[in-house]
Amino acid sequence: MDQLLKKCQIRSNLLRECLAECLGVYIMILLGCGSVAQVTTSKNSKGHYLSINLGFALGTTFGIYVSRGVSGAHLNPAVSLSLCFLGRHPWTRLPFYAVSQIMGAFLAAATIGLQYHDAIRYYSGGHLSVTGPTATAGIFSTYPADYLSLWGGILDQVVGTAVLMVCILALGDSRNSPAPAGLEPVLVGAVVLVIGISMGSNSGYSLNPARDIGPRLFTYIAGWGDEVFRAGCNWWWVPLVATCVGALVGTLIYELLIEVHHPENRFISESSTQGKATVSNQAVELSTVNAENNYHKDRPDGIKL
Amino acid sequence: MDQLLKKCQIRSNLLRECLAECLGVYIMILLGCGSVAQVTTSKNSKGHYLSINLGFALGTTFGIYVSRGVSGAHLNPAVSLSLCFLGRHPWTRLPFYAVSQIMGAFLAAATIGLQYHDAIRYYSGGHLSVTGPTATAGIFSTYPADYLSLWGGILDQVVGTAVLMVCILALGDSRNSPAPAGLEPVLVGAVVLVIGISMGSNSGYSLNPARDIGPRLFTYIAGWGDEVFRAGCNWWWVPLVATCVGALVGTLIYELLIEVHHPENRFISESSTQGKATVSNQAVELSTVNAENNYHKDRPDGIKL
Amino acid sequence: MDQLLKKCQIRSNLLRECLAECLGVYIMILLGCGSVAQVTTSKNSKGHYLSINLGFALGTTFGIYVSRGVSGAHLNPAVSLSLCFLGRHPWTRLPFYAVSQIMGAFLAAATIGLQYHDAIRYYSGGHLSVTGPTATAGIFSTYPADYLSLWGGILDQVVGTAVLMVCILALGDSRNSPAPAGLEPVLVGAVVLVIGISMGSNSGYSLNPARDIGPRLFTYIAGWGDEVFRAGCNWWWVPLVATCVGALVGTLIYELLIEVHHPENRFISESSTQGKATVSNQAVELSTVNAENNYHKDRPDGIKL
Amino acid sequence: MDQLLKKCQIRSNLLRECLAECLGVYIMILLGCGSVAQVTTSKNSKGHYLSINLGFALGTTFGIYVSRGVSGAHLNPAVSLSLCFLGRHPWTRLPFYAVSQIMGAFLAAATIGLQYHDAIRYYSGGHLSVTGPTATAGIFSTYPADYLSLWGGILDQVVGTAVLMVCILALGDSRNSPAPAGLEPVLVGAVVLVIGISMGSNSGYSLNPARDIGPRLFTYIAGWGDEVFRAGCNWWWVPLVATCVGALVGTLIYELLIEVHHPENRFISESSTQGKATVSNQAVELSTVNAENNYHKDRPDGIKL
Repeated sequence: MDQLLKKCQIRSNLLRECLAECLGVYIMILLGCGSVAQVTTSKNSKGHYLSINLGFALGTTFGIYVSRGVSGAHLNPAVSLSLCFLGRHPWTRLPFYAVSQIMGAFLAAATIGLQYHDAIRYYSGGHLSVTGPTATAGIFSTYPADYLSLWGGILDQVVGTAVLMVCILALGDSRNSPAPAGLEPVLVGAVVLVIGISMGSNSGYSLNPARDIGPRLFTYIAGWGDEVFRAGCNWWWVPLVATCVGALVGTLIYELLIEVHHPENRFISESSTQGKATVSNQAVELSTVNAENNYHKDRPDGIKL
Repeated sequence: MDQLLKKCQIRSNLLRECLAECLGVYIMILLGCGSVAQVTTSKNSKGHYLSINLGFALGTTFGIYVSRGVSGAHLNPAVSLSLCFLGRHPWTRLPFYAVSQIMGAFLAAATIGLQYHDAIRYYSGGHLSVTGPTATAGIFSTYPADYLSLWGGILDQVVGTAVLMVCILALGDSRNSPAPAGLEPVLVGAVVLVIGISMGSNSGYSLNPARDIGPRLFTYIAGWGDEVFRAGCNWWWVPLVATCVGALVGTLIYELLIEVHHPENRFISESSTQGKATVSNQAVELSTVNAENNYHKDRPDGIKL
Repeated sequence: MDQLLKKCQIRSNLLRECLAECLGVYIMILLGCGSVAQVTTSKNSKGHYLSINLGFALGTTFGIYVSRGVSGAHLNPAVSLSLCFLGRHPWTRLPFYAVSQIMGAFLAAATIGLQYHDAIRYYSGGHLSVTGPTATAGIFSTYPADYLSLWGGILDQVVGTAVLMVCILALGDSRNSPAPAGLEPVLVGAVVLVIGISMGSNSGYSLNPARDIGPRLFTYIAGWGDEVFRAGCNWWWVPLVATCVGALVGTLIYELLIEVHHPENRFISESSTQGKATVSNQAVELSTVNAENNYHKDRPDGIKL
Repeated sequence: MDQLLKKCQIRSNLLRECLAECLGVYIMILLGCGSVAQVTTSKNSKGHYLSINLGFALGTTFGIYVSRGVSGAHLNPAVSLSLCFLGRHPWTRLPFYAVSQIMGAFLAAATIGLQYHDAIRYYSGGHLSVTGPTATAGIFSTYPADYLSLWGGILDQVVGTAVLMVCILALGDSRNSPAPAGLEPVLVGAVVLVIGISMGSNSGYSLNPARDIGPRLFTYIAGWGDEVFRAGCNWWWVPLVATCVGALVGTLIYELLIEVHHPENRFISESSTQGKATVSNQAVELSTVNAENNYHKDRPDGIKL
């Protein structure tokens, strides 16, 4: 068995990272959108809005655990973009990451479409609609509330993604008060939870272009039709653009208000934040004992999400 | 007192492990099915569906804490099967583990039957039914929703258990980004929580053959009759077979997409994952200081759940 | 200021421990019963049954954090009794601990009585009743459900406290898979949470003689009258006796199924579990580096709750 | 990019700390009051009272993570005052901290006012009112329940803030059982959660003068008018004064019942608690290995919240 598995080994780092990003987003969206499917099709009897918040939060947590050691677990093109902007991720990998992320989200939506096929048919009476009382497109991607203006929606997405990015950067900033090693995925999940709790009602806190466009493409293909793009005055582009803008705004805020002001010489040299968090905390402890002198050189301590 | 207790010491490792698995599953099912009993008999006034999700999640967490140091806390025949398949657990112990796990689940169901005896009689008017408005068999084992087709149910169980297995393997993969030492039980509980939140409404997310068949046998004996096997078009075999298939599918997905591609030489040698996680983190730290040279040889760092 | 405070220093260990137990139980009951008061007087508009579960869980967590370094944070006469029974706590201190714990619970109930004075008067129309639609005695101590038989209630309390004790012992057993250092209070809170979720509807999961009798004495004095002792067929003695029996049953189960079977020689000598967990994890790490040779002798690693 | 950012570096410690406090409170209030806005404007369909509790709790957690490394994350004038009182923070910085905190809260309220502008207009029909069925001022600052007397409200705020302060001091007391390094923000968030669960219904658990007056000033300016100061019999001053009194009471309780009684000589010298928690746990571990002799002198281990 072990021999058989080893034959499948891929040695290309980029391909490994893309597979990890794809699986990470797949787990995240499967659990996140799955919770929306459960709440929607059970008509709130097997969950509430808080369940949906928890589904996306823990989905994010486990998506990160699945992929962080390999790709750094961005799981979000807007996060990848911000890290490229900060020089912590190569620009050349950005398109590969983004495509993998969208593919993972698409496959997760397809899985939910199959898994909840009976439930969706039962709930909607067989009619796949984007709006109305038995709308089911909202299981997969986000749509704005009726009262929301376009600029209100854009602002909502920008603020939400900016908060996400500020918190992610703070949790990984080893000169601030970072998350304990190994618990970053839980805390990033908690950020997603609280954004869902406090900024979810206006337009569904997509926060992530891949999370939105992947499932939207699935619904377009699987029978909901082009209404998924036309609904909400062509809302579909807002979660793509506003989240990227928001991530950059959040990055700038954190950099300008906190990170650039850290005094220069601290225990940990700045250059060390360029690696990927591929080595577990335990391994780091081991290396501390076995090879103290090399510590400064190769310690990967920046989380990249 | 101490002397008296020591006389009861068992030296057979297999027997110790079986006792631990039995007690671990007992705690898990007692707390999990207990939460269903509370929500059902109180007619949602003392809990909601989310309470049930939390009951099984934290039940799993504490079932693992109770048994992990002794048996590795599989608590699930499908997990044991996958670990045997990966060569991380001896095939010869599989039947003993499975029987202990089923026995633990049966005893837990019996305890709940006693503890909620008055409540169930009051709620159901004394009539123990499997279906209908005052059905109480669902307190103990899982039944499919009315709308669910057989293949839909099988797929639901396969996907759910596959996600469980992917996350368990990721959390224990020391070359990925594993759970912090000592917190694996909490994170595995969180996996169970989010699966319940996102994949619970179709057929009750059994995820575990022992969790389903043990309590089902109790209800068969305790007065619900053979309807517990006939309900849902003989649903009973699905949680037994589909969860094992799902666990193997999840294992393959994680191995093929992530684990086999890890570069060979890392700090921690691959052979070290064969032990059982019987030594606490603190003990490991101690051994690091006292006996650094032996570290690579006998460090047990694979979690086995 | 510092000088002034130092003049108040108490040097008697027993008195310090009693103060800590009293404050720990005070925090636990203030937050726990406070959540019942909030849910009751707001008629479920500012909380649900799950809030009550969370209130007692987090109340326990912070009660432990407040007192663990000084007294070991038993916070529960039934736990103190079990630890005496296991030889991990001196019998002579048991009555002092029990009285301090009851006093803490009484004072907490009095504080809630004051803090929710206006709310209780508004909710109940000024009539302090033990039963009926606007009963408010249940804010302070536990009463059985109408359907519950006496033996059913006793069994319910025995099972609940036994589960609590099994989990507490497992979380502190350094040869099993103990809780991570510093997180024991959170995990014991989670045990209380899940017991409330799965065993709370029959008779209110007192689990703790002090938690029940202290507030009951307050209600007796403060205007609810002797009905607080007569209600539920003189229910008041059940949470006192059955919890102690349950704690001993749980202790026996854990000892006989898990702890006595641990192989003798492990890294950590058995004698080291007799200390109190007064030293923080960080201090232990420090001592590891500064005084490695003394490690075995004075490392306090048993949590005592 | 990196060069550009470095040009913005501020070298004044006081200014850096004020920026951090401002951003920390901003994140806290944005997420906290955002959750009230979501629950209010969605008429409980996208959240419950528990969501609000979670919003403030996790808002506090991430507010602390964002600022702790720089300013110690007081985020609360009452906490700053207590730390000054204990001699752990210079009195001269108190006004700067307080103003920064109020400014952060004001800006967060303004952001929510914009982000929920459409929702508030839709919910309230365009009329910004402080009381009545479609009141929206409660999204921003706290108002007492109708039944609450003035003294009841003062007591409520004093008790709540005292509990907060006792728990914060216990979590940071290295000679008691402190929170694990790096998890203090999560546990302080949990304190805020449980206070909201158990002491939120009387007057909205402000616990923090800045959290209340900042958003109240925003509502005064933004169209709710001077009713925000007159409502509840001029309630506005209670959250300012009673929280400061409560914080001092809590400080005294913890000092007199627990902290002053700690035996003098422990591993960690008392003088070490005067620093700011600017260095991460990992850095501390590193310094332990690299520079053991300096450990006692410059280890910053007091959390300051």
